[in-house]
Amino acid sequence: MKLICSKSELIKKIGIVIKAVPSKTTMPILECILIKAQAGEISFTANDMELGIETKVEGVILEDGKAALEAKLFSDIVRKLPDADVEIEADSAGRAVITCERSVFRIAGRDPDEFSAIPVVEKEFPVTVSQLTLRDVIQQTIFSIAPNDTNKMMTGELFEIENDRWKVVSLDGHRISIRQVQLREPADPVKVIVPGKTLSEIAKILDGDSQDDVMMYFTKNHVMFEFGKTIVVSRLIEGNYFRIDQMLTTDHMTKVTISKRELLDCIDRATLLVKESDKKPIIMNIKDESIEMKIDSQIGSMDEELAVEEKEGRDLMIGFNPRYLIDALRVIDDETVGLYFVNSKAPCFIRDEKLSYIYLILPVNFV
Amino acid sequence: MKLICSKSELIKKIGIVIKAVPSKTTMPILECILIKAQAGEISFTANDMELGIETKVEGVILEDGKAALEAKLFSDIVRKLPDADVEIEADSAGRAVITCERSVFRIAGRDPDEFSAIPVVEKEFPVTVSQLTLRDVIQQTIFSIAPNDTNKMMTGELFEIENDRWKVVSLDGHRISIRQVQLREPADPVKVIVPGKTLSEIAKILDGDSQDDVMMYFTKNHVMFEFGKTIVVSRLIEGNYFRIDQMLTTDHMTKVTISKRELLDCIDRATLLVKESDKKPIIMNIKDESIEMKIDSQIGSMDEELAVEEKEGRDLMIGFNPRYLIDALRVIDDETVGLYFVNSKAPCFIRDEKLSYIYLILPVNFV
Repeated sequence: MKLICSKSELIKKIGIVIKAVPSKTTMPILECILIKAQAGEISFTANDMELGIETKVEGVILEDGKAALEAKLFSDIVRKLPDADVEIEADSAGRAVITCERSVFRIAGRDPDEFSAIPVVEKEFPVTVSQLTLRDVIQQTIFSIAPNDTNKMMTGELFEIENDRWKVVSLDGHRISIRQVQLREPADPVKVIVPGKTLSEIAKILDGDSQDDVMMYFTKNHVMFEFGKTIVVSRLIEGNYFRIDQMLTTDHMTKVTISKRELLDCIDRATLLVKESDKKPIIMNIKDESIEMKIDSQIGSMDEELAVEEKEGRDLMIGFNPRYLIDALRVIDDETVGLYFVNSKAPCFIRDEKLSYIYLILPVNFV
Repeated sequence: MKLICSKSELIKKIGIVIKAVPSKTTMPILECILIKAQAGEISFTANDMELGIETKVEGVILEDGKAALEAKLFSDIVRKLPDADVEIEADSAGRAVITCERSVFRIAGRDPDEFSAIPVVEKEFPVTVSQLTLRDVIQQTIFSIAPNDTNKMMTGELFEIENDRWKVVSLDGHRISIRQVQLREPADPVKVIVPGKTLSEIAKILDGDSQDDVMMYFTKNHVMFEFGKTIVVSRLIEGNYFRIDQMLTTDHMTKVTISKRELLDCIDRATLLVKESDKKPIIMNIKDESIEMKIDSQIGSMDEELAVEEKEGRDLMIGFNPRYLIDALRVIDDETVGLYFVNSKAPCFIRDEKLSYIYLILPVNFV
């Protein structure tokens, strides 16, 4: 194999596929990027057996073939080369020579035939959204998965499609995050659980400034995302997701409308007084004109009075893990938010009128 | 004590004195910033018993007094407050109330009388340089101290003043870094060893864009730096510094003039192939028109041919720890550098004609 690509193209494309290279593994071939040059096309592939990414690379093929190079070393070498064209040559034993101007690196690759191919997903019935939308929806929900839970369902997110409504749900036992997106056109029904790790990595690759589309294809065991010259294929998590509809009551006894920025800044300040280990709640004392926010810990105490824009219903005193409120408020774009309460033992809902987002947070005991 | 300062002034001044707050200590009072409000002046002080920093703070005193607040907590709270005036109040028991708009923090301070005063240094016979010069000279030499060496002398830098010549030296047994600065006017002779930690912290506080002056005052056991509204007082390291003059031979058998950027980039690339633990040298094969640079390790090999601008004397093959070359080349501003060699066992010198800098680096065996 022998090919020539510009340094900048190499950096960009390595940056995409390296997201599927595991940081720790006992199988050295998984640490590699597979480089393929054939039929006039160059591609890079990485595959950690859960998540596989393949992307096309612009360049000139001088000799067809393939090579498997240790991803981190390959990435580091390319990054340090002069800004010029880079020639990559590999022999059948896996040895590679990387040449750029007068600099010549020789490294030992691995046998490319050891590399596991990415599962093939038929490109039928795509669900199309913009890259921006997919990235936003992931970032707005990913924080409330439980990545290390023994219940595998909690390590992923529910993707549910009914007609032209796409619902994304994550939950960790203390809170539920829901985003609902209106699709451009109706699609076949889908109800799958996508691994959180796949979603985190995809969010890093997607171009947040781009209105370009992502096509999502769902099969029984896999989901494939296709955008630009890249495909990302991931296994799905097996099982039936939690039934959350019964938890989403629409009754409330107290409703508060408040500036998101002021509420968020206040809770953010309060967390200074809470160490990771001690679980001091922030207490909200909701009155007609204001919320008195209060936290009390071994380190000190904080009091702050927040003006509310509108309050309906009863006064209420309720406590929360400040972290959970912060996580939800940070990903809401609205300037004012609506908080809905039943009583001091029941979950609080932060949601907008048209339910494009719903954040359910369980209160904590503060007596 | 009761005073009012703007948030921005507090952040700036906490940022200065916190450099003298030790990250680990068994004496809780050392973790505090002493706030003093008296005689119309507000000051912040921190002191880790080796290094003390005091700075004046702009603000309004409502009631004289002092307080000792845990530096990290105080800093974190101020940073998270709204951008507005902050009121700090403390009672005689050390309890403090920090108020900003409608946010009220209550924290327990410590007894300010436990706080050790910074040693008094008489302001006689200052040596004056610009902040920029002092910062540069520190950054250009600090990398070659041996911060954890049992030989205390290697943990600091020699400051030597003779007439209008100020020399700064650091060494770690493998290399020596020397910077010489022309003072504006002759000063009394000085020959002291300043702790490396003091210099690192000072370099962070100094304004690198500033032509404003720093006054340095030397006593038998202390050095004081005074700039802006800040003083930094540090203990000196006792003992006689190494005699380095005898190591600085001016004879050479080979001299090479080369682009600094090209040499540095090449060595930087080569270090990719060297892990921290294995001590593979970079080998320079110096010929009439070029230097062949070569590194060979378990990971792979690199070859690169560098054009030289000028070469005098014999051909030479010599090996170095690439890290040491990189450290020196990074802090040299010149576009081309001169390298002076005797033979493959003798130190290499990187220096300019007027000896404003001299970097001596021992070679390593490569056979």
